[in-house]
Amino acid sequence: MPLTLSELAHPEYAQRVAQSFSLQGAMKTLDARLGRLAPGEVDIELDWAPSLTQQHGFLHAGMVSTALDSACGYAAFTLMPTDAAVLTIEFKINLLAPARGPRFRMEGRVIKPGRTITVCEGRAYGVDGTQEKLIATMGCTLMSVIGRDGVAG
Amino acid sequence: MPLTLSELAHPEYAQRVAQSFSLQGAMKTLDARLGRLAPGEVDIELDWAPSLTQQHGFLHAGMVSTALDSACGYAAFTLMPTDAAVLTIEFKINLLAPARGPRFRMEGRVIKPGRTITVCEGRAYGVDGTQEKLIATMGCTLMSVIGRDGVAG
Amino acid sequence: MPLTLSELAHPEYAQRVAQSFSLQGAMKTLDARLGRLAPGEVDIELDWAPSLTQQHGFLHAGMVSTALDSACGYAAFTLMPTDAAVLTIEFKINLLAPARGPRFRMEGRVIKPGRTITVCEGRAYGVDGTQEKLIATMGCTLMSVIGRDGVAG
Amino acid sequence: MPLTLSELAHPEYAQRVAQSFSLQGAMKTLDARLGRLAPGEVDIELDWAPSLTQQHGFLHAGMVSTALDSACGYAAFTLMPTDAAVLTIEFKINLLAPARGPRFRMEGRVIKPGRTITVCEGRAYGVDGTQEKLIATMGCTLMSVIGRDGVAG
Repeated sequence: MPLTLSELAHPEYAQRVAQSFSLQGAMKTLDARLGRLAPGEVDIELDWAPSLTQQHGFLHAGMVSTALDSACGYAAFTLMPTDAAVLTIEFKINLLAPARGPRFRMEGRVIKPGRTITVCEGRAYGVDGTQEKLIATMGCTLMSVIGRDGVAG
Repeated sequence: MPLTLSELAHPEYAQRVAQSFSLQGAMKTLDARLGRLAPGEVDIELDWAPSLTQQHGFLHAGMVSTALDSACGYAAFTLMPTDAAVLTIEFKINLLAPARGPRFRMEGRVIKPGRTITVCEGRAYGVDGTQEKLIATMGCTLMSVIGRDGVAG
Repeated sequence: MPLTLSELAHPEYAQRVAQSFSLQGAMKTLDARLGRLAPGEVDIELDWAPSLTQQHGFLHAGMVSTALDSACGYAAFTLMPTDAAVLTIEFKINLLAPARGPRFRMEGRVIKPGRTITVCEGRAYGVDGTQEKLIATMGCTLMSVIGRDGVAG
Repeated sequence: MPLTLSELAHPEYAQRVAQSFSLQGAMKTLDARLGRLAPGEVDIELDWAPSLTQQHGFLHAGMVSTALDSACGYAAFTLMPTDAAVLTIEFKINLLAPARGPRFRMEGRVIKPGRTITVCEGRAYGVDGTQEKLIATMGCTLMSVIGRDGVAG
């Protein structure tokens, strides 16, 4: 019987994710915050800002990707051993609706954990008060890397 | 015989791309510049900066995506009629090597123009002096939108 | 308030899907059957067979794709008007586990209906008695085409 | 300086690819043949047949994928050590034009070789006499697997 995500989780996953997140210059640029944090599940939240837009004033597809990729990466990272770093191999994103905001919640969820390869799904929601609208979906493949120079966390 | 990209190009494609590019808050945040500009071909260039990094100090995969998506979008836009806006439907990116910089050149190229759907390929290169190294590839599907409220260029 | 999938469905969606499915030589080659059939939701079922394998004896990733792409395409087709044909623009598939069978259930689900563009998600399950195991996920973009010569259904 | 694809190639890559290809039931079903075979480069060729079609009589997108995935997998396999098996992690395909035939040439090309992860690009061409037309592009990530039970070649 396969292990559950809770059984696979690093005992200090929350501190490890928070520590790595604080090192991402890109997350500061997005003024992004960590939201939900559980084994195999990480949310990242941010607000609409003119510095993140494309030409029509919506959040740029690449900025949606930046937040979703980090959410997926950290979801995978919660399950990785102490000496492993997480790297994105590839992702694909579908843009479903204009990213108007005013706020956004980006979900990363592990759907297949693995020793070397972890597969995640991401979903981006525009948030307006208590209303949420799905604006993008992501499929993301991450790799666990051990012992590569200058790459940890 | 199908039209060439030059025959398909909008007569004022260069001004139109430059005008739309200047409206992207995200391009200012990346401190990105337009490079090569030809029918169906747009390059975007930028420098490594700490505000664009993931936790190991490389350019964040999402920031690579932001520049590549704009390069692909504007490559498609060079071929679109005056009243059309360009929107990204989806893209997929493969990260091939760490994005160390110090500079980057992001190529967007139309491989299949169309009235509604245009398909582009993107390639990201790390640039060090005269040396270029392929760091990422993108496949991107764009849509031409006419007459949608608040969406032009 | 957006319309529900049931409100969007063609009144004769079941007959239309069945009719088009019967025209796919590929579905005969897979010996595939239509399963669940609802507005925006289509399942396709098939059995493991040596004629569909890769070199290790698992169902070939491309054959998994063939069934998932049809499931997604028909899920989208349930919502399309009488004079429209459905075409795949692109899909991406992640292979999560070896496709051993002995049976398979391939789910196609509309996550974003649209007049021109419909986005679907697919999931492939290996089925052994009452046990199901997720073996692949797909993200798929479909287009509704009207009035193109020789393309209907 | 990185090794060239020729330096990376297994000394008996041609026999190894041919041997594995002959084990794929799916390639027999497509009546597919190996074409070009070089380090990091494999072509697969086939003819249009009613057993491989979607509802409009074109080659099914999944069948295009089946041939492209095998071409990419074998391109990667030419560079792998004797005890390694090749598995597809994921691929994405864009369909650019109807796959009418009468013949097809599917190219798989390694763009980034690696010990664990290899990234390939695939291109599908419809062939009519001496004319070739690009009908699909693929981005594909493959994994080299060593010592997994029941998986070799």
